[in-house]
Amino acid sequence: MTTAKTAPVEITGYSWVPGFARGFVRDIRVRWVLEEIGEPYRTRLYDPTVDGHDSRIPDQPFGQVPALVDGDCRLFESGAICLHLAERSPQLLPRDPAPRARALSWSIAALNSVEPAFMQYAGATIFERKQPWAEARLPYVEEMVRGRLARVSDALGDGEWLEPTGFSIGDLLMVSVLREVRDSDLLSDLPRLADYLARGTSRPAFLRAHAAQLADFKAHPEKDATP
Amino acid sequence: MTTAKTAPVEITGYSWVPGFARGFVRDIRVRWVLEEIGEPYRTRLYDPTVDGHDSRIPDQPFGQVPALVDGDCRLFESGAICLHLAERSPQLLPRDPAPRARALSWSIAALNSVEPAFMQYAGATIFERKQPWAEARLPYVEEMVRGRLARVSDALGDGEWLEPTGFSIGDLLMVSVLREVRDSDLLSDLPRLADYLARGTSRPAFLRAHAAQLADFKAHPEKDATP
Repeated sequence: MTTAKTAPVEITGYSWVPGFARGFVRDIRVRWVLEEIGEPYRTRLYDPTVDGHDSRIPDQPFGQVPALVDGDCRLFESGAICLHLAERSPQLLPRDPAPRARALSWSIAALNSVEPAFMQYAGATIFERKQPWAEARLPYVEEMVRGRLARVSDALGDGEWLEPTGFSIGDLLMVSVLREVRDSDLLSDLPRLADYLARGTSRPAFLRAHAAQLADFKAHPEKDATP
Repeated sequence: MTTAKTAPVEITGYSWVPGFARGFVRDIRVRWVLEEIGEPYRTRLYDPTVDGHDSRIPDQPFGQVPALVDGDCRLFESGAICLHLAERSPQLLPRDPAPRARALSWSIAALNSVEPAFMQYAGATIFERKQPWAEARLPYVEEMVRGRLARVSDALGDGEWLEPTGFSIGDLLMVSVLREVRDSDLLSDLPRLADYLARGTSRPAFLRAHAAQLADFKAHPEKDATP
């Protein structure tokens, strides 16, 4: 828990996204951290259907959300923002060096060893699905994702969270990435990992973050017919 | 510069890799950080041609190098290890919140927004190159990588490093990722980014790290004929 600040932090998000992306835009990770630590936030929403919207998102070289304004600090990249904010919670990012090292390792594992495989899966099943190679390549990509998931499941073992010291920013980011399995059967042979994902996404802080992102979209239903 | 410790940190690496991977195995990132801060290290080398080698690398759920032993701290994931060690250098990871936030943002941008595109490129040009879809898909992947590189180049502008506060762990990780362009023409239209890459890889600390990784492979020349 952090000391209340004069101005709450500001997160950028989108005011509209296609249905498949709702609840999955990466500002949800930042909202989740803030809900875990009990800190209020403001949102600044951008309409991605307006030309040039991506060049208007401040301090975001890749034209993506989220970005964060936190006093004098300007951050981009959801992973960086989550690590930055997690400093406010000794539970999420311990100050003791040994458990802190593990939380950091799992955070980067989620972002750099697991999520890249899911990005390929999202490509194969969404963005490239009409490309001539899509059908032939999908089993290859699924195998890659399954390989990564099996390793995470092995590391989790029978644990409630990835480390015995309890839920950390590493779990928050890993669960966020694992959500990309969506309704596939990628977890069908990994019941402990499926339970871990369910445990993470049933946390009250996650549920509040999820509802808040969806609520921001609901304010713009008129664009839902946009192709 | 950090206080000397009783035992130097220990990095895991490989004792042999195929020619295309030499100088690119990710322990080079960790060696580079340690060379920048002037801290000695030990290496523990694993032979990846031995069955089960990946299950013997301590505390590494993905069976990859590097891992780090630093006193009571056990880390995995090169990005996490680099961020952990960078805490010892106010130049690499500033203590002032605003420049620290930027260094962290660029670090995660390298790992989660740029490197995943390069992983796809490495797939298309190396690991999947004999797959039936490889030739048709390669231009799509190249376009993805070029898009990311153009954004990094725009953000760099005429700067020497990504932020006016000077070389940080964000630059170290971004340069490490950009090295994956190898001898392609992916930087041919981005001379400022090509110069940035050359500037990073001509730092004495990088050159020492690179030489040290290559030297560890040279101790095992008998495996070079392994198919």
